[in-house]
Amino acid sequence: MKIGFVGLGHMGAPMALNLLKAGHALTVFDLSAEAMQTLADAGATKAASPKAAAAGAEWVVTMLPAAAHVRTVLTAEDGVLAGIAKGVTIIDSSTIDPASAKEFGALAANNGNAFVDAPVSGGTGGAAAGTLTFMVGGSAALYESVKPVLSGMGKNIVHCGETGTGQVAKICNNLVLGVTMAGVAEAMALGEALGIDSKVLGGIMNTSTGRCWSSDTYNPFPGVIETAPSSRGYTGGFGTDLMLKDMGLATDAAKSVHQPAYMGALAQQLYQAMSSRGDGKLDFSAIIKLYRGEKS
Amino acid sequence: MKIGFVGLGHMGAPMALNLLKAGHALTVFDLSAEAMQTLADAGATKAASPKAAAAGAEWVVTMLPAAAHVRTVLTAEDGVLAGIAKGVTIIDSSTIDPASAKEFGALAANNGNAFVDAPVSGGTGGAAAGTLTFMVGGSAALYESVKPVLSGMGKNIVHCGETGTGQVAKICNNLVLGVTMAGVAEAMALGEALGIDSKVLGGIMNTSTGRCWSSDTYNPFPGVIETAPSSRGYTGGFGTDLMLKDMGLATDAAKSVHQPAYMGALAQQLYQAMSSRGDGKLDFSAIIKLYRGEKS
Amino acid sequence: MKIGFVGLGHMGAPMALNLLKAGHALTVFDLSAEAMQTLADAGATKAASPKAAAAGAEWVVTMLPAAAHVRTVLTAEDGVLAGIAKGVTIIDSSTIDPASAKEFGALAANNGNAFVDAPVSGGTGGAAAGTLTFMVGGSAALYESVKPVLSGMGKNIVHCGETGTGQVAKICNNLVLGVTMAGVAEAMALGEALGIDSKVLGGIMNTSTGRCWSSDTYNPFPGVIETAPSSRGYTGGFGTDLMLKDMGLATDAAKSVHQPAYMGALAQQLYQAMSSRGDGKLDFSAIIKLYRGEKS
Amino acid sequence: MKIGFVGLGHMGAPMALNLLKAGHALTVFDLSAEAMQTLADAGATKAASPKAAAAGAEWVVTMLPAAAHVRTVLTAEDGVLAGIAKGVTIIDSSTIDPASAKEFGALAANNGNAFVDAPVSGGTGGAAAGTLTFMVGGSAALYESVKPVLSGMGKNIVHCGETGTGQVAKICNNLVLGVTMAGVAEAMALGEALGIDSKVLGGIMNTSTGRCWSSDTYNPFPGVIETAPSSRGYTGGFGTDLMLKDMGLATDAAKSVHQPAYMGALAQQLYQAMSSRGDGKLDFSAIIKLYRGEKS
Repeated sequence: MKIGFVGLGHMGAPMALNLLKAGHALTVFDLSAEAMQTLADAGATKAASPKAAAAGAEWVVTMLPAAAHVRTVLTAEDGVLAGIAKGVTIIDSSTIDPASAKEFGALAANNGNAFVDAPVSGGTGGAAAGTLTFMVGGSAALYESVKPVLSGMGKNIVHCGETGTGQVAKICNNLVLGVTMAGVAEAMALGEALGIDSKVLGGIMNTSTGRCWSSDTYNPFPGVIETAPSSRGYTGGFGTDLMLKDMGLATDAAKSVHQPAYMGALAQQLYQAMSSRGDGKLDFSAIIKLYRGEKS
Repeated sequence: MKIGFVGLGHMGAPMALNLLKAGHALTVFDLSAEAMQTLADAGATKAASPKAAAAGAEWVVTMLPAAAHVRTVLTAEDGVLAGIAKGVTIIDSSTIDPASAKEFGALAANNGNAFVDAPVSGGTGGAAAGTLTFMVGGSAALYESVKPVLSGMGKNIVHCGETGTGQVAKICNNLVLGVTMAGVAEAMALGEALGIDSKVLGGIMNTSTGRCWSSDTYNPFPGVIETAPSSRGYTGGFGTDLMLKDMGLATDAAKSVHQPAYMGALAQQLYQAMSSRGDGKLDFSAIIKLYRGEKS
Repeated sequence: MKIGFVGLGHMGAPMALNLLKAGHALTVFDLSAEAMQTLADAGATKAASPKAAAAGAEWVVTMLPAAAHVRTVLTAEDGVLAGIAKGVTIIDSSTIDPASAKEFGALAANNGNAFVDAPVSGGTGGAAAGTLTFMVGGSAALYESVKPVLSGMGKNIVHCGETGTGQVAKICNNLVLGVTMAGVAEAMALGEALGIDSKVLGGIMNTSTGRCWSSDTYNPFPGVIETAPSSRGYTGGFGTDLMLKDMGLATDAAKSVHQPAYMGALAQQLYQAMSSRGDGKLDFSAIIKLYRGEKS
Repeated sequence: MKIGFVGLGHMGAPMALNLLKAGHALTVFDLSAEAMQTLADAGATKAASPKAAAAGAEWVVTMLPAAAHVRTVLTAEDGVLAGIAKGVTIIDSSTIDPASAKEFGALAANNGNAFVDAPVSGGTGGAAAGTLTFMVGGSAALYESVKPVLSGMGKNIVHCGETGTGQVAKICNNLVLGVTMAGVAEAMALGEALGIDSKVLGGIMNTSTGRCWSSDTYNPFPGVIETAPSSRGYTGGFGTDLMLKDMGLATDAAKSVHQPAYMGALAQQLYQAMSSRGDGKLDFSAIIKLYRGEKS
């Protein structure tokens, strides 16, 4: 299939490479010439604009940092909507707020195009390995139609409901993630201060009611889980600033529907404290430093 | 073995029954004559005081609501320490603060007795089924010695470290539990307000980074997990008031070692809000009512 | 002086009336024909658009609900910037985020106009009485130049610094206000539950270190301050939804400069809880209902 | 009058000295021989025990760190209750929990003595100057009877209600104080980050709805209030660890009556974070360091 792909960052580049490997023909655009060249070297065609990337494509995929970028990429004079053929579906894998996803769906519909929001989980590792989970918002028929494209980049393609619900799923999951990590960090640091061995405590939690991904897979205390970022200096995982962005999406979404988000709002401030002291690039499990009195 | 058992409440009674079933000889004491009669009907001997229950026992087990009760049961004129033979080990399965556990360990030592703290997880269901997890604080030798007794009441007997660390493990695990449940409740209610199907959201969380016991086993949203208390009107699980007690132990323990407990302290207030509006007897997952606007 | 005035809502209308009383000639615009007629009856000239209101004016004043409205009113085809003469100063009294204020300052400068942000405190009462406080962001010279206009609507005209700092002052003040009110509500409800007479407690706070506007002028407990909204059913003050908007501006501003806002974020969720249960129109001091167990 | 005085710490010593200056005869006790000697040099009689200090006294005043000390001082074999004459009133000026105050009132009554709780505000400065505020819990008649004694040490003697309500007033006031200070610190740091001059911001707050003792008298930002501890390196005021103790009393009291204390519990964790990083001796307004990124 002929696919236009816009956004070749840390996530977008490996995703596009996997589409090439899956045998698709890609026309790509990114503001970085270097990023485009990497894809061109792998067989993609370089485009001069999002419009050019969309021209002639049977599918358009966008993977961008925030809603503002998606809006520009879609609606600018040289944007996707200006170049895309009628009837072609736009797949936006950016993590953005659900309201913007719905707005983009409406913009696409006005232009004669279908739109699905399809944010991912799995990180850069999953993007490289082609094992991402896609959370898809759009009609059941649309979901079925995009599966063959997404299966070139991921393993689990989950239908969440109508347009925007892919983002809802992503945001709600990451809200839980941000809260549980803060809670596990608090408890592991408390246990240390109270004199229990951290591996013993981790082991108990992971076989009891405190069990969670933040404890059994990504435990923030160094040495409890050897493969976790905490065991390699909090490098190479999901950055604090990215978690902060997602917590912001969650509390903003809560505000939009008049829901209190007590736990999320507090966790957000804790990640913010990490970011403001200069630790925004560390894996988000480094939040335990706030509890263990480790300076940045 | 001859075992003295003090405290025949919702947890203590089924634990004592399992010890009888395992072939031990029990002498029991409780303030409730009815509770004592139930055990007597099953083959236990009734004692007139903790002292009498301890007299002649090879082991003494206590299962009481709070540290104050343990202190009284041990140190009163007709208490355990007055009746127990030198060298006999006291096993306290109450959930109390680690400092009190250490204090009781010292009191026992002064009396010529060993002491382990051995709080449990698994609830009344686990107590009845004999599948409790025991978190044992005491020397490695002591841990080995109490295993045969505890294995009559539970499945996992975990050594946590020196005296008091059993309580530390229990408290830290339940701190995580209280925080994750509040976080999952917040996210599930947010997802509902944003229009995603709750079973779909639960399914995504449970296979992604939001995965936790509070979501995949005990999800607070009705209908997501059919066996969870939320699917039967929040009855029959771990009561909000009990969670509140444990959150209080956690934040008090944090205070004692000068650790901040941001997330735990906030979750504690949310459970407190449930309790103060009259919902303290509901399962603690009913905290989602605060988010869904359900009145008590 | 000839003044163009856009935005005749609960605050804007009495402000414009006071400018008329002060002897200025007003050309007004609002989306509500009724609001315009009220001003016309008082001597103002009706305009068909913001552009028309700005045409021929020596000063333009805007008083609108949020930054998005200000942006539209300034930049639309029939907006203020299209009609205003070069060199005329725009005074925006809306409460908006500081970044947008700076952006509007730059837009105005590009159009050959000066711009000050001049949000107010004092509420609808102060607007009617002409006793508002204006917090002015702009150069010292600009501040001096706008004083004669603002003094027709308010009593204190305070210079805060460069463009945007008027909004900063407003937002930071209201952040403190939202936090202190929540704190006073919590303490007054706690005192009640602990058995102290609320007037006695209020009296002690107001002469001690707990003294604050939220206690000595606007105490949330009914009957402590006879003139406070709490003593008249939480009606007629500063609505919960307005406080919620300001808390949102504060936490968003904190996010923009990577500052944690622990207390503000938590208070925001509490006001959100009030709003979500249907109490958003009550005075913000009604937050005490969350503590006293009063249903909406 | 003959007064027995127990507890000659930072507060107790200057209070006792003022009683001497007022012409009373004092018999004093403290665990520190040095503290006793200071008072003896000023004319007091040294006692060998609380019992001895109470013997022959017409009034007994206690000023101790916490409820546990008061309990010991009253009930020990050589304690106050063992030495005091029937009918003599005990005045406890310690800051303790209301439930303990009631318990001590009952113990005194059983011993044939009256008891009032009379905690103070005003700090060591007010203790030295004799300008303390006393918050008195006890019957109206008792309140009248203790006024002549207390007026030797303070300026405002306020009747709060029955036994224990003096402590309630103190705790609730300090709950507000701890919350408002955290809120002001958050807002002043936010204002700084957003580019407003801190003196200007302080000035606006102090004449607007953000006005509070924590801002207009004790502003945490250096230089805003020249006489505040923040303007002299956060020395010499009300220590963070003391504030932490009072926040603990407040949240514990809230727990005892099943009241949520969201804001207080969060502020408590922030002061705890200051204490755990080694800043517990700094004035509590140093909490602003958490927001300004200042290391300890």
